[in-house]
Amino acid sequence: MYSGMGKSISLVVLMFCMIMQADATLPNFIIMLMDDMGYGDLGVFGEPNKETPNLDRMAREGALLTDFYTANPLCSPSRAALLSGRLPIRNGFYTDNAHARNAYTPQDIVGGIQDDEILIPELLQKAGYNSKIVGKWHLGHQPQFLPLKHGFDEWFGAPNCHFGPYNNNKTTPNIPVYRNDKMVGRYYEGAYNIDRATGESNLTLFYEALEFISKPRPKDQPFFLYWAPDSTHAPVYSSKKFLGSSRRGIYGDAVRDLDAGVGAILNQLTALGIANNTLVFFTSDNGAAIVSKTHGGSNGPFLCGKETTFEGGLHEPGIAWWPGTIPAGTISHQSATVMDYMATLADFAGLPLPSDRQLDSMSLRQALTNGSEVKRPVYYYRGNELMAVRYGLYKAHLWTWTNGMDEFNHGINFCPGEEVEGVTTHNQTDHSSQPIIFHLGRDPGEKYPLGVRSAEYKAVWADIQVIVDAHKKGLKPAKPQLNYCDNAVMNWAPPGCKELNACLPVPKSTLKKCVWPH
Amino acid sequence: MYSGMGKSISLVVLMFCMIMQADATLPNFIIMLMDDMGYGDLGVFGEPNKETPNLDRMAREGALLTDFYTANPLCSPSRAALLSGRLPIRNGFYTDNAHARNAYTPQDIVGGIQDDEILIPELLQKAGYNSKIVGKWHLGHQPQFLPLKHGFDEWFGAPNCHFGPYNNNKTTPNIPVYRNDKMVGRYYEGAYNIDRATGESNLTLFYEALEFISKPRPKDQPFFLYWAPDSTHAPVYSSKKFLGSSRRGIYGDAVRDLDAGVGAILNQLTALGIANNTLVFFTSDNGAAIVSKTHGGSNGPFLCGKETTFEGGLHEPGIAWWPGTIPAGTISHQSATVMDYMATLADFAGLPLPSDRQLDSMSLRQALTNGSEVKRPVYYYRGNELMAVRYGLYKAHLWTWTNGMDEFNHGINFCPGEEVEGVTTHNQTDHSSQPIIFHLGRDPGEKYPLGVRSAEYKAVWADIQVIVDAHKKGLKPAKPQLNYCDNAVMNWAPPGCKELNACLPVPKSTLKKCVWPH
Repeated sequence: MYSGMGKSISLVVLMFCMIMQADATLPNFIIMLMDDMGYGDLGVFGEPNKETPNLDRMAREGALLTDFYTANPLCSPSRAALLSGRLPIRNGFYTDNAHARNAYTPQDIVGGIQDDEILIPELLQKAGYNSKIVGKWHLGHQPQFLPLKHGFDEWFGAPNCHFGPYNNNKTTPNIPVYRNDKMVGRYYEGAYNIDRATGESNLTLFYEALEFISKPRPKDQPFFLYWAPDSTHAPVYSSKKFLGSSRRGIYGDAVRDLDAGVGAILNQLTALGIANNTLVFFTSDNGAAIVSKTHGGSNGPFLCGKETTFEGGLHEPGIAWWPGTIPAGTISHQSATVMDYMATLADFAGLPLPSDRQLDSMSLRQALTNGSEVKRPVYYYRGNELMAVRYGLYKAHLWTWTNGMDEFNHGINFCPGEEVEGVTTHNQTDHSSQPIIFHLGRDPGEKYPLGVRSAEYKAVWADIQVIVDAHKKGLKPAKPQLNYCDNAVMNWAPPGCKELNACLPVPKSTLKKCVWPH
Repeated sequence: MYSGMGKSISLVVLMFCMIMQADATLPNFIIMLMDDMGYGDLGVFGEPNKETPNLDRMAREGALLTDFYTANPLCSPSRAALLSGRLPIRNGFYTDNAHARNAYTPQDIVGGIQDDEILIPELLQKAGYNSKIVGKWHLGHQPQFLPLKHGFDEWFGAPNCHFGPYNNNKTTPNIPVYRNDKMVGRYYEGAYNIDRATGESNLTLFYEALEFISKPRPKDQPFFLYWAPDSTHAPVYSSKKFLGSSRRGIYGDAVRDLDAGVGAILNQLTALGIANNTLVFFTSDNGAAIVSKTHGGSNGPFLCGKETTFEGGLHEPGIAWWPGTIPAGTISHQSATVMDYMATLADFAGLPLPSDRQLDSMSLRQALTNGSEVKRPVYYYRGNELMAVRYGLYKAHLWTWTNGMDEFNHGINFCPGEEVEGVTTHNQTDHSSQPIIFHLGRDPGEKYPLGVRSAEYKAVWADIQVIVDAHKKGLKPAKPQLNYCDNAVMNWAPPGCKELNACLPVPKSTLKKCVWPH
């Protein structure tokens, strides 16, 4: 009944929008998604060396989203959530092999994005958009999971992280690089080399982005570009032009390289006269990997980093740019996430959202264009557990965990130099009956919990408790996609390997539960 | 000989400049010095709530000084250094009662700024400047130390921190508020109240600043305004207009209040048509007092805060603004300090610097107007000890100390939530034969010391060792001014008290060495 009503309302909305846009061109969309870049890596968000002039300009000319989040402190679930508009627990990008574990899509992962998920490019197809992904996919690398099976028309990039090089492709194949639905080579081989000693690589993917933006299209066909470069993910790399140029070292070189790419893309839009018809979002897939110390990025004033559900794990640099539509210098405090991209794009494209499923997506149109702000919760998941909830300026930690003492004692530290007693715990600690609550306005670094006996605490927890209960009650977890691993599914013989004479022998299947240590 | 040469060269320079400026108006100068505000408190430097539109605009229209420092992690020595262009060890604003102690000018301090120190307003007097200090003085409160005895023509403000209210002026008098050389009242009394419960106060000193800027002056007489509001120092206060307006709470209200003051002052300059002839600097006296938790400010990505010689203690938000002279959007990486204001102002005013003393001041004219950068050391003192030296992007800690375990165990924590092993030590630790060295470009948070066996370490330490040796060899410490305390010197009967019928009985002298616990 409800679903039927939703559909008919959607149809009305769709027809209305089609009329509205009868003689208007649909806007182009660009999502720039960085890899492991932190809030504190951009000049405009406080990086002390101020080396991102293009991003800073983008923010100045557009909107700064101060309270912008990813959906997960790890890459694959974050990216699946961004493209599907749904929390990983709903789209299957999690594991329940163990409690509250971070899982992603390494080379031996069996799962991937399911056919019944509707991704942004699939949605936009209905309005005739031409879509391309440039960069990292990470939603599963078996053929049925790849981008062209899920709404993208074009792809240049890789399905997994660019780890490697491996031992001459013996026990592990190097990661393939794809052009559309076929591999064209592998990382660390030929044109796709990354010099591990110097950090130099020619994989400056913004050229691919520029080409796509500029290519001839049928009159008024809009485009969607998903630019997902992976150069700030370890092992960090940079094009030669920026190597050694940053005060921050190789990581800063990579940031400067990407910043130049941002500038080139925005300038291209202006040069083509389509800036006024293109909405550009910039963010990152998760917090900076401060576990990598000076080879990782920065989360500025936020606690801990990637892998954790503290602010450093999920609070992202958010920028939106659309000259003429988003007023220059907009500061939006709207609590928002990468999952909101879907509803926002649908809104601007005049498309109805799928009504047959629970989305975690809200259009940011009003927030971006007229400064409105809606109070709504933000959910911080780690694997199968809801670790924390933000509502307004308050954040309640239902569970805390950095990583286990075993790992920690081996030097794996997700909060280097930081330790907040009772908060950055090395045991999975259940606070769900009496959460640790922070006020993120006056305490963005999550250092000073509210006193549990204070009136403020009681009022906040009463509100959040209702939200948590309702969320849990309404939740139908999808079948977890990140439970099983198998060496046989690695990128031994991806599509196109024959033409390249690059197929590797596929070993026997060794299906097993993946091990997710933290 | 050298000194004589200096004088004659200075004379030539002076004459040259006087000729150059025969028909030019000398520029006005404004130094905006905040109290305990941290690097991370400004939107442009990364504060997550982005509530300082005027400061952010000031930076956008002027220059951002990314590597700007104060001279001391505590208020009085920092302010004395700013006005004298000399390190506290040279101008006497330190103690040697104990090793490496932070000292300032509480009500019972006996010492103050010495007559033979030449302060900025004294220097500018030679070129006919009209000078005013609005706000906190802090260079000693006995009559001979007050602003009008040291070059300022006008003063509205207080000689000490606005601690209080005390017990009905019985054991400690409330701090007086001065108009020029006479008290006009006391903090917490009458018009100068600060409501400790709400944080409300009408001491919105920027009106005093506006009035001074706008007042009629003889044709072409330039002015120097030193605006030193104290509202972000605990107990934090804000004008009613901003109370409750910030997402950060009362501290943020105070920041917003000051930000509005900055905007009002800049707008006034523009409205009066003198913006193009006025150089405005903005900074803070020391790092945020994160010891005060959510009632203090933020040092963004820097380690620890006020009282320490980590970056959080001395690395300040630096902005310079002068439309038409400083190119908009300038980013300067010049290592610079508050002591450089003196040489910069002298340079722009065509005045020679005193040649009979060691100054720690370099003109920033080139850095601000044409992007030049000079490599030079920055010294981090705590009391009588040189704790650290920065040179280029490297910082060597010769000594480390936060505070003693006794204090720490009583909850006084200068690095809350932060602990870097072997770095944030609770013992005074001597590293002078093998310093802890950080690369502040890739590690602004001072978490990852260079390996002492690395070639990088050896090269850097060789350079810095020479600098340290030369500095120590050339150093002639002044007589320390912050050694003695006496209840009898408190503000019992300041000048002007009789007219107000506000003189309090002066107790008997109890001269003793001041106790400086950290």
